[in-house]
Amino acid sequence: MLEQIDQQAQRLMWEVRQQTLQLMTKKFNVAEKTSARDLVTTVDKQNEKMIDERLKTIDPACRIVSEEGFGDQVDDLKGHVWIVDPIDGTMNFVMQKRNFAIMMGLYVDGQPTLGYIMDVVEGTLYHGGKGMGVFANQQRLHTPENKSLADSLMVMNGYLTMNNVHGLQKAARKARGLRMYGSAGIEMIYVLTGCLGAYVSHLHPWDLAAGRVLAEELGLVVKSIDDDHLNVLSSNLVLVATKQAGQDLLTIAE
Amino acid sequence: MLEQIDQQAQRLMWEVRQQTLQLMTKKFNVAEKTSARDLVTTVDKQNEKMIDERLKTIDPACRIVSEEGFGDQVDDLKGHVWIVDPIDGTMNFVMQKRNFAIMMGLYVDGQPTLGYIMDVVEGTLYHGGKGMGVFANQQRLHTPENKSLADSLMVMNGYLTMNNVHGLQKAARKARGLRMYGSAGIEMIYVLTGCLGAYVSHLHPWDLAAGRVLAEELGLVVKSIDDDHLNVLSSNLVLVATKQAGQDLLTIAE
Repeated sequence: MLEQIDQQAQRLMWEVRQQTLQLMTKKFNVAEKTSARDLVTTVDKQNEKMIDERLKTIDPACRIVSEEGFGDQVDDLKGHVWIVDPIDGTMNFVMQKRNFAIMMGLYVDGQPTLGYIMDVVEGTLYHGGKGMGVFANQQRLHTPENKSLADSLMVMNGYLTMNNVHGLQKAARKARGLRMYGSAGIEMIYVLTGCLGAYVSHLHPWDLAAGRVLAEELGLVVKSIDDDHLNVLSSNLVLVATKQAGQDLLTIAE
Repeated sequence: MLEQIDQQAQRLMWEVRQQTLQLMTKKFNVAEKTSARDLVTTVDKQNEKMIDERLKTIDPACRIVSEEGFGDQVDDLKGHVWIVDPIDGTMNFVMQKRNFAIMMGLYVDGQPTLGYIMDVVEGTLYHGGKGMGVFANQQRLHTPENKSLADSLMVMNGYLTMNNVHGLQKAARKARGLRMYGSAGIEMIYVLTGCLGAYVSHLHPWDLAAGRVLAEELGLVVKSIDDDHLNVLSSNLVLVATKQAGQDLLTIAE
């Protein structure tokens, strides 16, 4: 049953990509949510509507947590819960028309089960699940080399960097270099493919759900920096890293 | 004559791209220059050798400034001076196999004249020159919208950000968001195509030469932040930006 759901979910991701590329060629509306740095567009909304409607057909008993509010009110993790980001990196989508993603993850009784990250412009779907492996389109990904922080590039956003949250500037100085791409989906892809050794960010449920499934399946570390454990339904300050870079970074973080 | 040089220089860029892609599929050697954050590979060296040799045929009376030292000793800007970066973003090249560029710029009696930035993985050559326009492969680029800093994404590297050089954190907080890609060539391309409103970095001659030609031709601001004017043959703390974002940023910088 999960296999069937996975096949249909993959098809859905490609169709949402197609819709996105079509909508991008036309004028779309941009609105501010909490601030000028927190945007939503009509494309986010149309994608979310499409995904939520289709998931209800693909996996009828499921409940859906989605960024722009077309989903369900979900307070527990019983059964099948999908967590959806219809456009991740909306600021990049608006300003750059690149470096953004579409993501969805399935949690079954709270367990990370299936994950999907679509790099829309590149046309690469990163997908997989617990016990199934992780793939970039048809190509299987291997666990990235277990690099130390000192041998890795790392990502941490501007806020964490400038405010030296948890003393993390020290980690950035230890790394080979600091990068910022502005999309959790793109940054997750970079960790999955070994382009980054460590990624630290404050993530909403829809920013983390898909990437966590894929990162854990590849044997990468996914941890909360603030708390003892990750909470699937709330925001976390999260570390995604190779085992060694993760350990190095947690030793440094205050 | 410049037109002929331009045609041959474009062909050269595609051939160096081809060589790079071939060398990337094999094992190559990586060495540290000044530190673990300052790398050189055999690909940098083979590319530079190829470019320098070919430029001597394309533009026989020229002199060449190139990063890895196969060029000439150049202390003045008389006549034709080419400034070459055989792999820009060597760290990304080594760690990510993406987000790096090949660049060369021609200065005639000190004047920015022709510029070339090859995004190797994407296969896009950004090229043009004074009075010739700027192109991404065959497509002409238009001057990016004159956005303010508050309406722009900006790039500033980790060192400048974490040390708050010239109080530039204030500019980053004013911008829509901060990004870091780790390659001057890729970051220049992002400004040329309107994906970034402002880019601040400490640049060597080979990091700046090509991008400056193209940015100035598009009517963008290219300025030294430390000095009254840019020195083509030495390093500068440089701002590349839309007119408005540039003005906003210079008002903020201490």
